[in-house]
Amino acid sequence: MEIKEVLKKCDFFSSLTKEQQELLISSSRKAHFKKGENIHHSEERCLGVVYIIKGELRTYMLSEDGREITLYRLYNDDICILSASCILDAISFDVYIDAEEDTEAVIISAQVFQKLKTENVYVEKFAYKLATVRFSDVMWAMQQILFMGVDKRLAIFLSDEIAKTGDDMIRLTHEQIAKYMGTAREVVTRMLKYFHKEGIVELSRGEIKVLDKKKLRSLL
Amino acid sequence: MEIKEVLKKCDFFSSLTKEQQELLISSSRKAHFKKGENIHHSEERCLGVVYIIKGELRTYMLSEDGREITLYRLYNDDICILSASCILDAISFDVYIDAEEDTEAVIISAQVFQKLKTENVYVEKFAYKLATVRFSDVMWAMQQILFMGVDKRLAIFLSDEIAKTGDDMIRLTHEQIAKYMGTAREVVTRMLKYFHKEGIVELSRGEIKVLDKKKLRSLL
Repeated sequence: MEIKEVLKKCDFFSSLTKEQQELLISSSRKAHFKKGENIHHSEERCLGVVYIIKGELRTYMLSEDGREITLYRLYNDDICILSASCILDAISFDVYIDAEEDTEAVIISAQVFQKLKTENVYVEKFAYKLATVRFSDVMWAMQQILFMGVDKRLAIFLSDEIAKTGDDMIRLTHEQIAKYMGTAREVVTRMLKYFHKEGIVELSRGEIKVLDKKKLRSLL
Repeated sequence: MEIKEVLKKCDFFSSLTKEQQELLISSSRKAHFKKGENIHHSEERCLGVVYIIKGELRTYMLSEDGREITLYRLYNDDICILSASCILDAISFDVYIDAEEDTEAVIISAQVFQKLKTENVYVEKFAYKLATVRFSDVMWAMQQILFMGVDKRLAIFLSDEIAKTGDDMIRLTHEQIAKYMGTAREVVTRMLKYFHKEGIVELSRGEIKVLDKKKLRSLL
């Protein structure tokens, strides 16, 4: 794919002036990252905005004991903005970004992106909106970390319930289930919604119908 | 303080047209939240953008067992944007927000803010930039959770070192300290930077000078 074709997919492109478009196209470059290569690192080089043509990037932080905590993964046609965090003054943290697969990308340099961002509010909006999408990804990861094990515990509870009553319909409120499980109502609601999305249960007021017992058992 | 005076402090205000300014001023309202009151809640009312005149708001999520995990706190002249998350399509998570103190605020309704955001890219940029600042706050909280205890362990290590050598200067690289402590080099570097900001140590290449032994000991 041509660099120009890739850049046109960025939603701010059409808001740029002719000169800005030309600067962007002429200064951007293709890059290849080898599987396992670190592309962004605390305190180090500020690569810029990375558009993934093909491949996978993983963003993570390090835990106390040096374990890697994955925050999110980016795939084809995703755009990596935290690799340009040096020029986004609302971002005051740093992360690690590695290529998880051999990755082909187009890089908009931090310098050029900063210039465009200063000149054009649509570029700035693009950057911060994208950062907010990543915020959502990180919150999801954080919930996974904090909620770890709830899916399993809820699956056990539901399995026990249908085994006990011999009925696939469970007539309990989320509040009641939460009490049985020793957790909060909101936690049960959230996990039931997730089970619903996965096709495991059907939800209606005061009732939960188990649709896929096999899938439910796979969580045990 | 007048509602108008408060709204003028929002950096997008000057980018609004006369009509947009008038709509904003006439539709915004003052609100008082009692200490302990919940002002935003998963799946519930979408209050809008909250400008804190005086008081404190706390944003948190619930852990598996119903414990509240504080993400960040907002004080006088801070603006709460996650209370308007319903109209920000880049945000796909929800949080709880409580008044931690009796709080006086100006509220821009979600409906009006959405209208302005659609009409005016500066408003949209404002919202997402602010969300990105909160992203930074959340990353800080997450690091605290994941890194819990490292400050203490490093303080113990440094205290032991200066007691052992009788010298306030510690001639070890971060890498060496990390090995002694059984953690990663980056973790030591980050925490030493924090100690430096707190005035506890002075850092130079391959050397750490303990400046404030009393403060160091307070971490033990």
